[in-house]
Amino acid sequence: MTSQTSADGVTEQSFTLGEIPGVLFTPRDATGPRPLILMGHGGGQHKRAPGVVAGAYRFAAEGGFAVAAIDAPNHGDRPKSERFIEFAGDMRARMAAGEKPAELVATMHDLLAGQAVDDWRAVVTAVQELGHVGAGPAGYWGVSMGCGFGVPLLAAEPRIRAGVLGLLGVRGLAGTAAQVSVPVRFLLQWDDTRVSREEALALFDALGSKEKSLHANPGDHGGIPAYETDDALRFFAQHLG
Amino acid sequence: MTSQTSADGVTEQSFTLGEIPGVLFTPRDATGPRPLILMGHGGGQHKRAPGVVAGAYRFAAEGGFAVAAIDAPNHGDRPKSERFIEFAGDMRARMAAGEKPAELVATMHDLLAGQAVDDWRAVVTAVQELGHVGAGPAGYWGVSMGCGFGVPLLAAEPRIRAGVLGLLGVRGLAGTAAQVSVPVRFLLQWDDTRVSREEALALFDALGSKEKSLHANPGDHGGIPAYETDDALRFFAQHLG
Repeated sequence: MTSQTSADGVTEQSFTLGEIPGVLFTPRDATGPRPLILMGHGGGQHKRAPGVVAGAYRFAAEGGFAVAAIDAPNHGDRPKSERFIEFAGDMRARMAAGEKPAELVATMHDLLAGQAVDDWRAVVTAVQELGHVGAGPAGYWGVSMGCGFGVPLLAAEPRIRAGVLGLLGVRGLAGTAAQVSVPVRFLLQWDDTRVSREEALALFDALGSKEKSLHANPGDHGGIPAYETDDALRFFAQHLG
Repeated sequence: MTSQTSADGVTEQSFTLGEIPGVLFTPRDATGPRPLILMGHGGGQHKRAPGVVAGAYRFAAEGGFAVAAIDAPNHGDRPKSERFIEFAGDMRARMAAGEKPAELVATMHDLLAGQAVDDWRAVVTAVQELGHVGAGPAGYWGVSMGCGFGVPLLAAEPRIRAGVLGLLGVRGLAGTAAQVSVPVRFLLQWDDTRVSREEALALFDALGSKEKSLHANPGDHGGIPAYETDDALRFFAQHLG
């Protein structure tokens, strides 16, 4: 733990675990164990991206959860590999040209997912040793690239009991998705210009979970309505509470 | 009003409005105005079908709403026309043979929808004259055939400010759906053996509402999970409260 600030009833603690920079959000003056939510950011974003921080504050302040966010491999304060830089440039160019580079997105996620899953598993172990987190159940929230890492994470990590995923298609993930068994909310933006509707529906279809709900709303990739955060809060409270 | 019973904090009042048999559910000892929810039953069901009554009790007891349920034309205590009896027999036979008789369903709904919409509009006017209902905002809940009548009702009736619809495909409804402008929850059962997934997604797509959410869950036509009733309660409270 390297620094600490408090605002709006939430304490933020920056940390570095090995090579992983992260932030832990907890209710101010929290003591004792509580459920943990992991928040995975989207491609090109980082641990303090506005969507992550906004969700983390609500989960901590309103739900009493501990929330951990980390920089994904090659993102935020972490070093970028040459191969990643090439990939990211190619993806940006194709998206700017109006393409949906699903194959390239899937390849990039596949390139990073092994490390991302290892990172999250180490983070769960480390933050659950803290007195104000403790070894309770964990949940995962991540859309777009955060879903690309979340699907293999949920398939691999039994400490995670529920997940909010979405904004991603099925490419490269069908087999792993079938291994997910915990309750899932899957968010789909009906007018997503980056992700094909059919492929996103196919990823929802591929999830092995007995309890899974697809929530589709109008709007583009970045436009998840605020009421889905209300819903995620209730979803996590129900399954981790 | 012809009879009255109370249980579990809810008062049921049977009524007949012209040729329309109905039930009004209100919180016990309710006085003064409150929002009204109209509940439309499915094909072959009636105003006291278990799914209708269960929802009505929760909406009244937990949300404080007035809830009206009526027998649809040719259903429940209403007389059946020869043409309807033929249609219904044909549909049952085709469904028993494993078909999804979408064209026949659409034709049947079309045959009855004009009367159903007139019925609901008269019911809103009549029950809102009661002191413990009053002239507040109204909502509509109806899936399957209840959605087939709900779409034209929402398109026609400005007193209805929000709707929960679903379990139906787009056939015969695309144009009317485009005229719906109020917030809608659209329920889809992912493994529905009676309604094609593609056609149900197309009906959601066709809805003109700026705020609309598709909630898809695993299971067959009759298997909407209980948590969607929790969600409907919050949805109506938000938009009619």
